[in-house]
Amino acid sequence: MKATIYDVAREAGVSIAAVSQVMNGKGKISEERRAEILKTMERLNYQPSVIASALTGKKTFTLGLLVPDISNPFFAEIARAVEDQGHHLGYSLVICSTDNKDERVERYLNLLQQKSIDGMIIGTGMDNKEMLTPLMKQGIPIAMIAREMPDIGVHTVVVDDCVGGALAAKHLLDLGHTRIAILAEHAKVISSRERVRGFRNTLEEAGVVLPDSGVRNCHYTVEDGKRQAIALLEESAGVRPTALFCCNDMLAIGALQAAKQLGLKVPEQLSVIGFDNTILASVTDPPLTTVAQPIEPMGKKVVDLLIQELKKESKLKQRVVLRPELMIRQSTASPGDMH
Amino acid sequence: MKATIYDVAREAGVSIAAVSQVMNGKGKISEERRAEILKTMERLNYQPSVIASALTGKKTFTLGLLVPDISNPFFAEIARAVEDQGHHLGYSLVICSTDNKDERVERYLNLLQQKSIDGMIIGTGMDNKEMLTPLMKQGIPIAMIAREMPDIGVHTVVVDDCVGGALAAKHLLDLGHTRIAILAEHAKVISSRERVRGFRNTLEEAGVVLPDSGVRNCHYTVEDGKRQAIALLEESAGVRPTALFCCNDMLAIGALQAAKQLGLKVPEQLSVIGFDNTILASVTDPPLTTVAQPIEPMGKKVVDLLIQELKKESKLKQRVVLRPELMIRQSTASPGDMH
Repeated sequence: MKATIYDVAREAGVSIAAVSQVMNGKGKISEERRAEILKTMERLNYQPSVIASALTGKKTFTLGLLVPDISNPFFAEIARAVEDQGHHLGYSLVICSTDNKDERVERYLNLLQQKSIDGMIIGTGMDNKEMLTPLMKQGIPIAMIAREMPDIGVHTVVVDDCVGGALAAKHLLDLGHTRIAILAEHAKVISSRERVRGFRNTLEEAGVVLPDSGVRNCHYTVEDGKRQAIALLEESAGVRPTALFCCNDMLAIGALQAAKQLGLKVPEQLSVIGFDNTILASVTDPPLTTVAQPIEPMGKKVVDLLIQELKKESKLKQRVVLRPELMIRQSTASPGDMH
Repeated sequence: MKATIYDVAREAGVSIAAVSQVMNGKGKISEERRAEILKTMERLNYQPSVIASALTGKKTFTLGLLVPDISNPFFAEIARAVEDQGHHLGYSLVICSTDNKDERVERYLNLLQQKSIDGMIIGTGMDNKEMLTPLMKQGIPIAMIAREMPDIGVHTVVVDDCVGGALAAKHLLDLGHTRIAILAEHAKVISSRERVRGFRNTLEEAGVVLPDSGVRNCHYTVEDGKRQAIALLEESAGVRPTALFCCNDMLAIGALQAAKQLGLKVPEQLSVIGFDNTILASVTDPPLTTVAQPIEPMGKKVVDLLIQELKKESKLKQRVVLRPELMIRQSTASPGDMH
C-alpha cells in the first residue's frame, strides 16, 4: 500500500504540518529533524507528487546547472559536488553544457524556466547578462560558481583567483625563476585575468618584469595550450623562459606536450605550473604542480546559498571567496643551468 | 506579448494539431517538419507549461541518466553525448551519480519517477534488478548504455567488449608479446569480463597461455590500478610480463605510474594498453594506446532508441552493439630484450 503523509508523520513522530514543511522547504525546522523526516519518507517509500506541487506553485526540488562543457574534468568535478550537496538536501540537478555560447545559454535558461526549476546555478560565461532578467523577474534564485558577473546581484562562489596567481608566482620565485611566461585564457574571462594580475603583481614586487609579449591568450583546450607554448618557447629562443604559469590544467598539459616536442625536460629545463587541480593534474608525467581550487567546498557552498534563498532564510546576497592552495607535484624545480 | 500555439502554427505554416503533436511527442510527423516547428517555437520564444502538461499525463521532456560518477571522465563524456542528442530532440537531462551503490540507485530511481521523467537511461551497475520494476510498471521507457542487464527487456547500447579485448590482444601479439597480464575490473562487471574473454580467446588461438594468476581484479581507480600493477610486476619478477592489458584507461594510468615507480620504461620494457579512450588517454606520458569506445555515437543512439519508444514508434527492444577501434599511441611497442 502506498504510504501517505499521515504515515510519515506518525512514523517520524512529528505533525503533518512538519512533514509538509519539509516537503515544501518552508518553515523553521531543525536540520536534525528535517533529516529524520526525510529518512522516514525514504524508508516508507513515500512519494509526494512533485508535479502536482509544482502546479500549485510549490517546489519542484530541481536545480539547474549551466556549465561550458560537462565533459571537461573541471566542470564534471564541480557538477559532482553540486549534485552531491543537492541530493543531500533533497534536490536533483539538470545539467546543461553551453559551450560558452550565448544562444545556447539563452535556450537552456528558457528551457529550465519552463521546467519550473527552483533555482539556477551558473558556471558558464555569458556576454549578455540581460538573459538572466526573465529568471530574476520570476523570482527564481540564481547563484554563480567559478564565474562572476559583478553587475548583477546574485550569490557567487569563487576561488580567490588573484591569491591563486600570487601563490603560483611565489612558488616560482622561491625556486629561483626570473624568466617566466604565462598561458592565459581569453581576455574576457575574469577569473583568468585575476590569476594573471595576482601573478604579475607578485613578480613585480620581487622586481621581476614580465613583458606583455610573455602573456599569451589561449582557447580552453590542450591543443591550443600546446600551440601557444611552442610559439612562446621558440620565439624567445635566446632568452627562453625557464617557467610557464598556465591559467588552467588543460593549458598546462598543452605546455608539457610542447616541452616534450621541443625536447625540453620538465622540470629540469622548464617548470610548468597549472591551475584547478582536476584529475588530469595527477595523471600527467611528471605530475603537475598546480593551484588547487577547493572544488568540493565550492559546490557545497553554492547549493547551500541557493537553498537558503529559496527557503527565504536570508535575503542578503553573498559573494563567497574561497582560498586556493598550492599543490606541489613534480613539474616545477629550480631552473637548471642549461639555457 | 507572449506567443501562443496559434502563433507557432501560423508562423510554421502548419496546423495547431501538428504543433501539439510535436509538443506531446505523439503522432506521425516527419523529422524535418518537426525540426521546423521546434525552430519556430524557439524563435517566437513559445513556452508551453511543461508542468501543466505533465499533470495531464503528458510529457515533461526530461530524461534521467544514472552513472556511477559524473566526475569520472568516461561517464562525463557519455553524459555530454546524451545531453547533446537529448537537447537536439527537445529533452533535458537530470544526471545522478550512484557510486554503483544499490541504495543510491534505488533512491534516485524513486526520485526521478516522482519527477515524472519521460525516460530513463542507465549507465550504472546494480545488483538488484527488481529496482527497475516500479518504473517498468509505470510504462517509463528504460535504456541502458555501456552496461547490460540481459535478464530484463530494455534497449541496450554497448560497445562490442569481446571484440575490443580481441583487438587489444591482436595488437600485442603482432608486436611480439607472449608474456602478458591483465588488470580487470570487478568480476561482476560484465563489460570487463567480456573484454578479458575476447583478449584471452585471441591469445589462446595464437597458442599463448594466460595463467589465472595473470588476471587481477581492481577497483575503478588509478590508485588501485597502480597497486595491483606493482603487485603483478613484482611477484612475477622472474618472468615479468612485457605487456599489460588494462580494462579501462584509469587502470592503465595506474599501470603507467607503477612502471615509473619500478623504474620500468614504457613502452621499451613494458607495453600498456587501455580501454575507453577518454581525454585521460591523450594526456599521459607516453600517450596511451587504448581501445576506443565510440562514446558520441553511443550516447546519440541510446537517446534515439528511448525517444522512439516514447513516441510509440516501435515496440521492439533493441540491443545495439557498436564496434570499438584500436587507437595506437605510444605506450605499446615490441618487447625489448631487457628482462
